[in-house]
Amino acid sequence: MNIAERAQPAKLAQLAKSIERVRAERPLIHHITNYVTVNDCANITLALGASPIMADALEEAADIAALSSALVLNIGTLNERTIPSMIAAGVRANERGIPVLFDPVGAGASAFRSRTTERILREIRCDVVRGNMSEIRFIFGENAQGKGVDAADGDMLRDAESARTLVAETARRYGCTVAVTGACDIVSDGTHIALLENGHAAMRDVSGTGCMCNSLVASFLGAGVAPFHAAICGVSVMSLAGEIAHERVSRLGTGSLRVAMIDEVGNMSPEIFERRVKISCKNI
Amino acid sequence: MNIAERAQPAKLAQLAKSIERVRAERPLIHHITNYVTVNDCANITLALGASPIMADALEEAADIAALSSALVLNIGTLNERTIPSMIAAGVRANERGIPVLFDPVGAGASAFRSRTTERILREIRCDVVRGNMSEIRFIFGENAQGKGVDAADGDMLRDAESARTLVAETARRYGCTVAVTGACDIVSDGTHIALLENGHAAMRDVSGTGCMCNSLVASFLGAGVAPFHAAICGVSVMSLAGEIAHERVSRLGTGSLRVAMIDEVGNMSPEIFERRVKISCKNI
Amino acid sequence: MNIAERAQPAKLAQLAKSIERVRAERPLIHHITNYVTVNDCANITLALGASPIMADALEEAADIAALSSALVLNIGTLNERTIPSMIAAGVRANERGIPVLFDPVGAGASAFRSRTTERILREIRCDVVRGNMSEIRFIFGENAQGKGVDAADGDMLRDAESARTLVAETARRYGCTVAVTGACDIVSDGTHIALLENGHAAMRDVSGTGCMCNSLVASFLGAGVAPFHAAICGVSVMSLAGEIAHERVSRLGTGSLRVAMIDEVGNMSPEIFERRVKISCKNI
Repeated sequence: MNIAERAQPAKLAQLAKSIERVRAERPLIHHITNYVTVNDCANITLALGASPIMADALEEAADIAALSSALVLNIGTLNERTIPSMIAAGVRANERGIPVLFDPVGAGASAFRSRTTERILREIRCDVVRGNMSEIRFIFGENAQGKGVDAADGDMLRDAESARTLVAETARRYGCTVAVTGACDIVSDGTHIALLENGHAAMRDVSGTGCMCNSLVASFLGAGVAPFHAAICGVSVMSLAGEIAHERVSRLGTGSLRVAMIDEVGNMSPEIFERRVKISCKNI
Repeated sequence: MNIAERAQPAKLAQLAKSIERVRAERPLIHHITNYVTVNDCANITLALGASPIMADALEEAADIAALSSALVLNIGTLNERTIPSMIAAGVRANERGIPVLFDPVGAGASAFRSRTTERILREIRCDVVRGNMSEIRFIFGENAQGKGVDAADGDMLRDAESARTLVAETARRYGCTVAVTGACDIVSDGTHIALLENGHAAMRDVSGTGCMCNSLVASFLGAGVAPFHAAICGVSVMSLAGEIAHERVSRLGTGSLRVAMIDEVGNMSPEIFERRVKISCKNI
Repeated sequence: MNIAERAQPAKLAQLAKSIERVRAERPLIHHITNYVTVNDCANITLALGASPIMADALEEAADIAALSSALVLNIGTLNERTIPSMIAAGVRANERGIPVLFDPVGAGASAFRSRTTERILREIRCDVVRGNMSEIRFIFGENAQGKGVDAADGDMLRDAESARTLVAETARRYGCTVAVTGACDIVSDGTHIALLENGHAAMRDVSGTGCMCNSLVASFLGAGVAPFHAAICGVSVMSLAGEIAHERVSRLGTGSLRVAMIDEVGNMSPEIFERRVKISCKNI
């Protein structure tokens, strides 16, 4: 599978317009997510123009999911109280046709995360699964040992083509869109594959860029953008914001980079997106 | 009910002095609050000159409340573990005469939040209830559907007078001070009503401005300021900080605005407060 | 016990090199910590060059500890669910020879915190205990009433020599390194004592400087630095970052100071450390 074709201008213009769609619709994004990066998720959701709600009690998870335009499930700090909430919210979202994004944080790093990941994938139809390469490899069935939830995955660069194949096959196996983010970003729905080349290496030193990316993808989903395109838009907006933020504040440091990334999501326009985004696509 | 009278200079000077009172007393503010915005609550409490403590385990909630100068109860990410803690802390605070602020985040958005809100209002005497218009409307008994916990409430602007009446009547019904924040801010103790006109629309794109406002109001309560005045001071300091922060960093974005708001609470002085605050008051 | 001797240049150069060791090893630091400052802990761990993982479910706490290079236990928002997780993680870490840092946040402020502190110290061998003066005094056996978890401790300044004696004796009693941070910082392993004089008073108005300091000390531990030196390095890097950040952003405020501190941990170099650090050491 060789990706040589740049996305065509007309296609990019259509993707870029999705940003306006989020701002016009202001979709409500229900997050059941970890307590580490949840504030950044809330703020980046608002920055894009969507509205966040965080609710993880079993007593209300399904009710809040039913009110929402998209649901994010993230097992970054999972526990026995929130797993049933994730299942209940996911099942209700599935019943109502509300799109679901799942981030299997640390899948493979502990038996608890691994079996919870398997359970969520078995019981809930996920529209988008987003993770780093070792998490997606776990889902695909390869044994990958996690090294921190913020770790980049050097392996992906060592063998780019096999990484793309793995992403596409995982997408086909689960009938969903899979987005791998890291040193480079790959999105596939099993039929198409996109390679996204924005972002900056300094982003790996900010905690939660993956979680924030989830919020952006879910915001596009919640505004009615189809999963493959929502994943491309969400990942690209995150990477572009990181890239632009890095140009502005790299002399300061990673604390400032985190703040500036949220700024730049708010400043993102279809014009900036269209001018700077680097997407290569291809049918498989 | 028509509000035409600007608060008199002597009154404003007295309110402004409350800032110095917080800094002199350094009251300990016990928060049982959501995990989304809790860090901002801690930092803004410190910025005003008070001292935060977050403790939500039933085993210690009442003990910590008893040590504190004021208690904040916020159901933003409530669960079956923290509700009994809120009740225990609130009951102990009531026994000791320690002021309580309650924020019914998302009341009306799920049955779980609605019945928890009703339980807290039934079992605990709250000195100040602060929320957005749809939450206060729920408490008053009108059926309001929440749309995100950070949503502004356009309705309030459509019919300003009925909004004020509703706030005043809710205050009378519960024998407390009610503060509604949003596109404009209304505070009433049932006898007096104040309209606060500071702030900037960009604040709605920062998550947790309401929660941070709770911390400020509670800090004034903890320093011995009476509820109606504490609510006016807390809401006004938050709005002024947002307004000044926006003047300084609006070219950057909402990530920077959040950071700058905490800066400007720390920089707030009685002089700045007196010079810039816009308060209209009236007896009912 | 009089501390007159400045640490010798050769010693400082060796300590300074520890920063490069963290960056080369990128140790995985498992945190079971409070939800108030956890995001800052994650970001400051990354800024120093280590990799954070937060996992507090009993089902995986020991597994994640076993994967990690160091473990942080912090009872800032303890509850009945996370205490067994702390014990399980600590016991596993002890079995594997993985260093453990314990922060008894608020010990003495509630019976629940006090008995949990005693239990952790009884059941887990802690390599470093870091706290403020009132927490360490509680551990030593003196009755100290906490006044907020961010409070500085004026007492320490009133009688510096007795404070140092208490730190050294606590270290001897528990066979660990004890680090007290506050208006001035004292580290002792029971045999040696170090007085650290960097930092700025404005740091007390940022929530979580103690928690962030834990992450730094644990990162040094995880890179193989011995406990007494890891504590000196972690506390000094935090203080230096605060001092340098304050020089850069003091005109802005404490919101900016918090962001800048994380920047300056990332910018820290052995050269800056060696040039600016103020350490007085002595055998006891």
